[in-house]
Amino acid sequence: MALIVHKYGGTSMGSPQRIRNVAHRVAKWRKAGHQMVVVVSAMSGETNRLLALAKEVSPHPDPRELDVVATTGEQVSIGLLAMALKDLGVDAVSLTGWQVGVFTDNAYMKARIDTISQERIRRELDAGRVVIVAGFQGIDPDGNITTLGRGGSDTSAVAIAAALHADECLIFTDVDGVYTTDPRICSDAKRLPNITFEEMLELASAGSKVLQIRSVEFAGKFKVPCRVLSSLTDPDLPVEEEAVSGTLITYEEDPKMMEKALVTGIAASRSDAKVTLHDVSDTPGVASSILQPIADANIDVDMIVQNVSVQGKTDFTFTVPRGDLEKTVQVLKEQVLPKAGGEGIVTNDRIAKISVVGIGMRTHSGVASRMFKALSEEGINILMISTSEIKVSIVVDEKYTELAVRALHHAFGLENGPSEV
Amino acid sequence: MALIVHKYGGTSMGSPQRIRNVAHRVAKWRKAGHQMVVVVSAMSGETNRLLALAKEVSPHPDPRELDVVATTGEQVSIGLLAMALKDLGVDAVSLTGWQVGVFTDNAYMKARIDTISQERIRRELDAGRVVIVAGFQGIDPDGNITTLGRGGSDTSAVAIAAALHADECLIFTDVDGVYTTDPRICSDAKRLPNITFEEMLELASAGSKVLQIRSVEFAGKFKVPCRVLSSLTDPDLPVEEEAVSGTLITYEEDPKMMEKALVTGIAASRSDAKVTLHDVSDTPGVASSILQPIADANIDVDMIVQNVSVQGKTDFTFTVPRGDLEKTVQVLKEQVLPKAGGEGIVTNDRIAKISVVGIGMRTHSGVASRMFKALSEEGINILMISTSEIKVSIVVDEKYTELAVRALHHAFGLENGPSEV
Repeated sequence: MALIVHKYGGTSMGSPQRIRNVAHRVAKWRKAGHQMVVVVSAMSGETNRLLALAKEVSPHPDPRELDVVATTGEQVSIGLLAMALKDLGVDAVSLTGWQVGVFTDNAYMKARIDTISQERIRRELDAGRVVIVAGFQGIDPDGNITTLGRGGSDTSAVAIAAALHADECLIFTDVDGVYTTDPRICSDAKRLPNITFEEMLELASAGSKVLQIRSVEFAGKFKVPCRVLSSLTDPDLPVEEEAVSGTLITYEEDPKMMEKALVTGIAASRSDAKVTLHDVSDTPGVASSILQPIADANIDVDMIVQNVSVQGKTDFTFTVPRGDLEKTVQVLKEQVLPKAGGEGIVTNDRIAKISVVGIGMRTHSGVASRMFKALSEEGINILMISTSEIKVSIVVDEKYTELAVRALHHAFGLENGPSEV
Repeated sequence: MALIVHKYGGTSMGSPQRIRNVAHRVAKWRKAGHQMVVVVSAMSGETNRLLALAKEVSPHPDPRELDVVATTGEQVSIGLLAMALKDLGVDAVSLTGWQVGVFTDNAYMKARIDTISQERIRRELDAGRVVIVAGFQGIDPDGNITTLGRGGSDTSAVAIAAALHADECLIFTDVDGVYTTDPRICSDAKRLPNITFEEMLELASAGSKVLQIRSVEFAGKFKVPCRVLSSLTDPDLPVEEEAVSGTLITYEEDPKMMEKALVTGIAASRSDAKVTLHDVSDTPGVASSILQPIADANIDVDMIVQNVSVQGKTDFTFTVPRGDLEKTVQVLKEQVLPKAGGEGIVTNDRIAKISVVGIGMRTHSGVASRMFKALSEEGINILMISTSEIKVSIVVDEKYTELAVRALHHAFGLENGPSEV
């Protein structure tokens, strides 16, 4: 008997029939003898409906109250799934974030989890119940309702699996695993039976939509064995077969794999915007003076490039989430330009970030040069470059996204699975 | 500066525009210098939508989980109203039942309030905020979500007003007060500027839909000054004018009024069903042996009639809510008939209960006889009779409802307001 966490997203919970299917799948695992905790999202479309309703009432809804409204979507889901399980003769109980004790900071709409209480979940598990937990939500130290931000149900599931030391966290989604790249862009993309945590983290940060990056960070921090698998398979698929499907995130490096120097996948993201400050003074601390106010405004900065200095002036370029571009420019104008000087701000929200990821590349050069060659052969101009130990990311004009992905997928021979460099 | 509780129902909260109107009205009261607590229902149609969704998932939804689902309607409402108030520059905060600390028993779907914590509400009021509280919901001693049953938001409002010792509880609804009878049935019905608590209680139990009976009971227990008034008036109506509109429930009897022996109103209800057990043994304790299992099944019994005994056998008749008829028959068949004997069960769910209410009738006879005369003149057969100190109720065939109401309204001259008997 193992302790297993399942997570089902909005599509899996998208209708009464689908909720009954989820119940069927969970019941199958329970009947196989496992202790089960199930984390669910709101029914697909429900969160958007609630946010639209709020916008109809208030053009700029108060964040605290928006979280009060938005969390009802998951609360409906947990109640519905629990009653569907009871109909199948499986004892179950639903718990909201506050009932579990999912304690977060007080950053409404993008709260971070501090601690998760085990007491209530353990009590219900010990009583033989399947525990259905509302994803995406928590409470701050004053008992206010918070949300973890979009896609936060993945994070809830992994965090709960970590808190309970679950044997495995199965994240059911509408794809059957992690691929060498997006199969909708590249038809010969290959599913990876497993992937290292570091690669998964880079893929998530590089724009792969399979898992929310914060959930991957959580998984890595607590080494939670996570498996991404499909909720669209036959619900009667035997448990032993389902248990080895999809893609498993691993934490132990395989020494043989290391030597083989693999590129694992290509990710593309169209969710960023590029901001350039021209001719700022190149003095010590200028980067911090630009980025600190951005961070204070709770805006995540991804890639950062600073050109060499010419006559004590430099260009400073970085990327932010596209939705935060307006706010970023406002912060720069109000707080940065008056101090740092600079000749003005140039923005571009029609960019794509393409990343080549592979744990192998840390010991091998040549990945970047092969990338640049493949792109130049297609006549694609590179606007920014950023590298990490196991990732090379480039920014190109958005219109080249698919072309660039296919060119790189082919350049690294990924149609045959993870490739040697 | 007074502490005022407002309550707005589903119709008042029925659209983003209406929610902004409610915010406007509350802001007006706040700006007049009052401390404000506002209790709201789910947007009209929302509770039914949620219950229908649950029924789609599960034909007989688990009560605990149904409450988890149903309470989201009010949670959406409080968030939306709080953000609308903030848009008007009025500081506001929404609180769910568990955030306030509305503690109930654990009878899901019809829980009763035990205590209400003042701590959080007082803290928010002291900080100068309007406090928006979700009606209809609470938590049981184990932290499970409960609901007070249909119409429970009235009860929430009155209970919170009682706990806070509020100066007045204003219940905004789609009628502009309590009438001598339903104006849709009797066009010359008159609005009552005030009504005694006892009369209001009898009217509520007799089927007047203005206030839920449990809310009136709560009001009486703690002598909460409650006013029923319209939410359809101009939101810019001056506070001093609005404060004296509608119908006020009073607790002090006016000695002059007592002598005048008034009949205050006529109420009609079509929500009951009649159950008769034929030829049960007329032994001591038989009534209890019939009614105790019904009570244990959480079914409310209203009128009870037992005929005189013939040869040690009697007929036993009572009324229950129409929706509980099926369950009642089941309980009788399983638990009562095997013990009490009896020749079988006869039910009738096409009945109406018509009640004449007036605090004056306790010192005057003649009300019942005038009733029976008026009904017999219209050829209406009386199926059951039940009397209390200030009410006479009769049960008739449902098809006579309007005719009986108009005949009685005229017989007591209520077209000229509350009448002497």
